[in-house]
Amino acid sequence: MNEYNLEVVQEKYARLICEVGLNLQPGQKLFIWAAQLEMAPIVRQVMKIAYQMGSKLVSVLYHDEVATQTRLEHAPRDSFDEYASWKTDARLKAMNDGDAVLLIGGPDPNLLQGYDPALIEKAARAYGRYVKPIRDLISKNATQWLLVCPPAASWAVRVFPEDSPELAERKLWEAVIKACRLDQPDPCAFWKSYLDQLEVRSTQLTRRQYQTLKFTAPGTDLELGLPPGHVWIGGWDYTAGGIKFCGNLPTEEIFTMPHREQVNGTVRATRPLSYHGGLIEEFELEFKEGRVENFSARMGEEILRSMLETDDNARFLGEVALVPHNSPISGLGLVFLNTLYDENASNHLALGNAYRVNLEGGPEMEEDTFAVVGGNTSLIHEDFMFGSEEMDVDGLLPDGTLEPLMRNGEWVWD
Amino acid sequence: MNEYNLEVVQEKYARLICEVGLNLQPGQKLFIWAAQLEMAPIVRQVMKIAYQMGSKLVSVLYHDEVATQTRLEHAPRDSFDEYASWKTDARLKAMNDGDAVLLIGGPDPNLLQGYDPALIEKAARAYGRYVKPIRDLISKNATQWLLVCPPAASWAVRVFPEDSPELAERKLWEAVIKACRLDQPDPCAFWKSYLDQLEVRSTQLTRRQYQTLKFTAPGTDLELGLPPGHVWIGGWDYTAGGIKFCGNLPTEEIFTMPHREQVNGTVRATRPLSYHGGLIEEFELEFKEGRVENFSARMGEEILRSMLETDDNARFLGEVALVPHNSPISGLGLVFLNTLYDENASNHLALGNAYRVNLEGGPEMEEDTFAVVGGNTSLIHEDFMFGSEEMDVDGLLPDGTLEPLMRNGEWVWD
Repeated sequence: MNEYNLEVVQEKYARLICEVGLNLQPGQKLFIWAAQLEMAPIVRQVMKIAYQMGSKLVSVLYHDEVATQTRLEHAPRDSFDEYASWKTDARLKAMNDGDAVLLIGGPDPNLLQGYDPALIEKAARAYGRYVKPIRDLISKNATQWLLVCPPAASWAVRVFPEDSPELAERKLWEAVIKACRLDQPDPCAFWKSYLDQLEVRSTQLTRRQYQTLKFTAPGTDLELGLPPGHVWIGGWDYTAGGIKFCGNLPTEEIFTMPHREQVNGTVRATRPLSYHGGLIEEFELEFKEGRVENFSARMGEEILRSMLETDDNARFLGEVALVPHNSPISGLGLVFLNTLYDENASNHLALGNAYRVNLEGGPEMEEDTFAVVGGNTSLIHEDFMFGSEEMDVDGLLPDGTLEPLMRNGEWVWD
Repeated sequence: MNEYNLEVVQEKYARLICEVGLNLQPGQKLFIWAAQLEMAPIVRQVMKIAYQMGSKLVSVLYHDEVATQTRLEHAPRDSFDEYASWKTDARLKAMNDGDAVLLIGGPDPNLLQGYDPALIEKAARAYGRYVKPIRDLISKNATQWLLVCPPAASWAVRVFPEDSPELAERKLWEAVIKACRLDQPDPCAFWKSYLDQLEVRSTQLTRRQYQTLKFTAPGTDLELGLPPGHVWIGGWDYTAGGIKFCGNLPTEEIFTMPHREQVNGTVRATRPLSYHGGLIEEFELEFKEGRVENFSARMGEEILRSMLETDDNARFLGEVALVPHNSPISGLGLVFLNTLYDENASNHLALGNAYRVNLEGGPEMEEDTFAVVGGNTSLIHEDFMFGSEEMDVDGLLPDGTLEPLMRNGEWVWD
């Protein structure tokens, strides 16, 4: 393992966050939601750089994930429909004020293991109600937003369970450094150029306007319709006001919106899915006219069930994303147990909410109209991986031609 | 130094906070504002006990005091009138909803030393505007609230600068344990009985309805008028709805409201005052018709000046409090550099805002009426100590009799 100076790495990371991910504008305020108290050192680096870039104010809402466990252990059993709405009020106010929003922190993937799934689901549903307007604004890119996951001790020991906590955290940093290209001489310059490349590929795909994508791999045989006017997005995101940003760092994916009622066939997940602190492993889904009609999982089937039962549309897809198997994250050969990284190692789908920006005119549509043209609206948006080096992808053009897109997990085009 | 188990101490402390200080009601929600991330262990203990007592929800807003320094170092110089109002919105919502509110954390008394006082004052004034409605609700005891200050590393090394940080923190815990009577077999039982005693004494003082108090000590010669209908408070506080609680732990004081325009003479402070992270030491004030007309300080005079210039009423008094010199805190012979402790070692005054509850009918009064009868309204409320073993206090009764209250810092009555 290479040696690195954590403080230097964190400063590089913070600069990448502010300059590329958020592309902070002069004077713009920044709101940070930190998933753990231990994010403090990097949060302070982000504050420093944001202020140096001229931000008028940086404020931070720290979440304490241990408190979630304390609640599950000790709170009255009938109190789990309560939610501290000041927390979502704060995020909503920031977005409505046009502040940039940073979500930072890689949570413990096993945080909620062993707790009552019914209570967890009740709490998640209460949260879902309050977070919905925020998801709507994010889905419309109302302002710059960014999700990054620096290592946390609780997460590291899940990824490297045989190692000491110190070594595990060091190894996870090493992987994150590679995935985020913090080992590049100038990570900001690297990402600016790489995001340009992803944007070019997504523009090419949007121009093709495939009617259907076909996915085949062991355990997977899926036909997925795309609505007319669908937009592939990759690399840069753009706010409604036209500011360039990048909502996920790292990102390798190019994604769009399936037609919610035109998904048929079977899907086998190729990586575990961490949902509300529980792990769903080796699961399969069967779709009929867009809806998950059957499902099974070797582990965490109950968690999968409660996820699918969040609301009526949780069983429909909101996203399809293409990631070549040779991505650097895939090359690390590591299951991160964290969607931000794992989704960028593989082709994936998301159950639940679709992004308005993946449809021409989507951001301005009424919810009803969005549904009619094939857009899905749900309290959840959960990515899961189904790509592998054994996956082929083909696109059906409007003229009936079937065009190969990926073979053995890699792009056919160059 | 006695040995103690920190976890056991913190659990006792948390129980005292929930059962006596806040007197949490069945199902009542709790909002916690933590002054530092390192408060997490005791915050989690408070959550546990609050939930065990049936609280429906406990939420925590963590402040990071290091971020305050980051801002002062790096933020644009013209941005210090900005304030993250979602933080006060959260507290205000909690109080308006009838939740109990806990403020927890002993900040670094030297936090802001060396930074530009003009920026500090600008930031304080911006905060003051947003915190005003909260102060109003606290002043009216709209709901149960409590301030406690468990030791923090940054604070401990200021109190014991010659010791290692570990030893300093341990010594400060030892002092806090004694001051909060956490070494009592049953701290909750101790405080319930002690708060009853303080209440009895304050009721006696209220019945006397002194017109004027006279304070004499080296450097102090002060006449302080009390408005008709003034109420002495000591021990228990009561919410507007009649719930018993205790807003400061520890508390040794019995306090009321001076008439804002009837204060004349000189006052010499007997302990340093920590204000917005700066220390004001060995200072004297001269009052004429209630207003500070002259002042001087051996150290921190500029900080004192900017404090007095916060608003028009910052130069008037809002509180006078009596504390016998034999209080256990005084017995520790320690300058805590923290008002919660230091004010309970000595007679003290507060510049700025008066508490509505210190006047008969005060909580319901319009602001104008409150001012006419002698109540002071200001963005600040800053206690400073002027008592000592050399202080005498006398009370002038409505019939003209001068009655001795304290001699050499101790109560004359028993």
